[in-house]
Amino acid sequence: MSDDELDAAAGFPAIVPPDPEVATAARARHDRLTKPPGSLGRLEDLAVWVASCQGACPPRQFQRPRVLVFAGDHGVTADGVSAYPAEVTAQMVANFAAGGAAINVLAEAAGATVRVLDIAVDSTEPLSASIGAHKVRRGSGNIAVEDAMTEHETLAAIDAGRRTADEEVDSGADLLIAGDMGIGNTTAATTLVAALTDSEPVAVVGRGTGVDDAGWARKTAAVRDALYRSRRSTADPVALLRICGGADLAAMAGFCAQAAVRKTPLLLDGMVVTAAALVAEKLAPGARHWWQAGHRSTEPAHAVVLRRLELEPIVDMRMRLGEGTGAAVALPVVRAAVAALASMATFDEAGIST
Amino acid sequence: MSDDELDAAAGFPAIVPPDPEVATAARARHDRLTKPPGSLGRLEDLAVWVASCQGACPPRQFQRPRVLVFAGDHGVTADGVSAYPAEVTAQMVANFAAGGAAINVLAEAAGATVRVLDIAVDSTEPLSASIGAHKVRRGSGNIAVEDAMTEHETLAAIDAGRRTADEEVDSGADLLIAGDMGIGNTTAATTLVAALTDSEPVAVVGRGTGVDDAGWARKTAAVRDALYRSRRSTADPVALLRICGGADLAAMAGFCAQAAVRKTPLLLDGMVVTAAALVAEKLAPGARHWWQAGHRSTEPAHAVVLRRLELEPIVDMRMRLGEGTGAAVALPVVRAAVAALASMATFDEAGIST
Repeated sequence: MSDDELDAAAGFPAIVPPDPEVATAARARHDRLTKPPGSLGRLEDLAVWVASCQGACPPRQFQRPRVLVFAGDHGVTADGVSAYPAEVTAQMVANFAAGGAAINVLAEAAGATVRVLDIAVDSTEPLSASIGAHKVRRGSGNIAVEDAMTEHETLAAIDAGRRTADEEVDSGADLLIAGDMGIGNTTAATTLVAALTDSEPVAVVGRGTGVDDAGWARKTAAVRDALYRSRRSTADPVALLRICGGADLAAMAGFCAQAAVRKTPLLLDGMVVTAAALVAEKLAPGARHWWQAGHRSTEPAHAVVLRRLELEPIVDMRMRLGEGTGAAVALPVVRAAVAALASMATFDEAGIST
Repeated sequence: MSDDELDAAAGFPAIVPPDPEVATAARARHDRLTKPPGSLGRLEDLAVWVASCQGACPPRQFQRPRVLVFAGDHGVTADGVSAYPAEVTAQMVANFAAGGAAINVLAEAAGATVRVLDIAVDSTEPLSASIGAHKVRRGSGNIAVEDAMTEHETLAAIDAGRRTADEEVDSGADLLIAGDMGIGNTTAATTLVAALTDSEPVAVVGRGTGVDDAGWARKTAAVRDALYRSRRSTADPVALLRICGGADLAAMAGFCAQAAVRKTPLLLDGMVVTAAALVAEKLAPGARHWWQAGHRSTEPAHAVVLRRLELEPIVDMRMRLGEGTGAAVALPVVRAAVAALASMATFDEAGIST
């Protein structure tokens, strides 16, 4: 890729919001269905959102929801910030490919398919050519003491996410879910959230996969150091990703922003994906109108970033796994919302007194 | 039915709890799956519950979830407590039978089937013989000034609910959902909740299908009057159903209790069903261990009764429709929980470091 092409990677066109006229038509249709107006609560809001994203009322049920899991390693694991060794990232990529991970099972239950992408796993070779098709680098620098990657790599990673969204939409995906896998990635993502929301590390650092008290203290120290390193770049999303993010996070940001460019609804998953989405909203303001928050996890930074994005989680099951699992659990709820608006009888059709 | 048989209707055998040994095995299996222990949060709890109800680990995915909608009219509508005229109950029964109501659409989306029962609709003839197979009476007395029904009718209604549960379990249902339909039924159900939780009417009376301020005041007055009429019977669940309940509520109570007798897991829906479930827990202590709360509605009494039953709602979508719709939205979440425990790879199988 030429330098000119790369420079364009972080330049997004103006985001067109979901169709407000269709939203109005969807609300009007809801009021004609055989139920008291508003009695389906948030289900009505979700159906209106889907209709306005699709530009059609009644909305169509999703035919090809697609989960993209962005995998990457993080040099900050050298500081002992995680309960698991770094080699688990590559092992889990193999588990995704074999269909044995939580996201494989939960996506299938929700009628979605899964694709895993090795964006920055610390391995000599990707598991397969297709999994490694958008690989940017091996792992990342230890953000407590050095940049995660170069500017060139940052732009390449954003572009990888954009191209992934394009590939999926061009292949017929009508709902996208972003998921994450990477030992240490909550440390980088929490730093991004703290930098963009001006939060104290102790207020946003969580247990990740389940680190103990001493590990939590090391993780908080790493976030504090990375935050200090990024203090002059909080207004520059590309610089933030370079200094205290990672290629996987940059790819997720590009993916979330490009979904909006391509007018395709997207369900966010947990804290890592939502941190990347907050960066995406800086890159492409208004992109968030194309997203819903699938769930709220137990990570403290997740609640902070959801508030900043003004997104209300669909479910809250105290999950903290990532991979897209929270969004996969939320998908049937969105499907139910679509079904109600599309298929219920109207008062007229049913001959019911109003 | 003989008087002896009827007298037995409210007598339930001791409830055997879901299998604690299977629950322990399910928790142990969860800790071997390829995810940090506990990281699926409440999804893990739900899967453990299903396994212990089924007495088998891993649990089986539900093959025949069944929604039973109990329809009945309420004489208290004469006091202007609802936003809709009473004839809507019968019209909605026809809508359920035609497949056009919200519960039809949401049950289908969740892979469940629906059966509607005319327990006490105020019509000369039930819509069909099968819908009216367990009909107890037409409507109910206005509970603000008179009993909802006789003791004989109360016992017959409890028995109708029990027989319905038996029919469904005998036909292979492996998950039950109770739903309600009846203009005015939130007034009776709220009275039951207030009586059994010693709550003030103003603290528990809600808007039902969307009554205005003046209607809310009339509804609160009706609940207060019905509560006064029931003041000496709060320890007697059958008397409470007779004085301030209704045949539909009595049938739901019998149904929820009998599900536990038949060791079949059940998802509660909104405030009306959960009020009946609170009565069922009085009739058959421990039955609640066979139930999960599908959702939390916007009715104030619902939060009160869920706390009393120590049940945590699975979803909270600000719904207030009844019919079983909240439970139907929750069903795919329970399915996801079952799928994860049943189908994920273990660390050993996937060759992952722990």
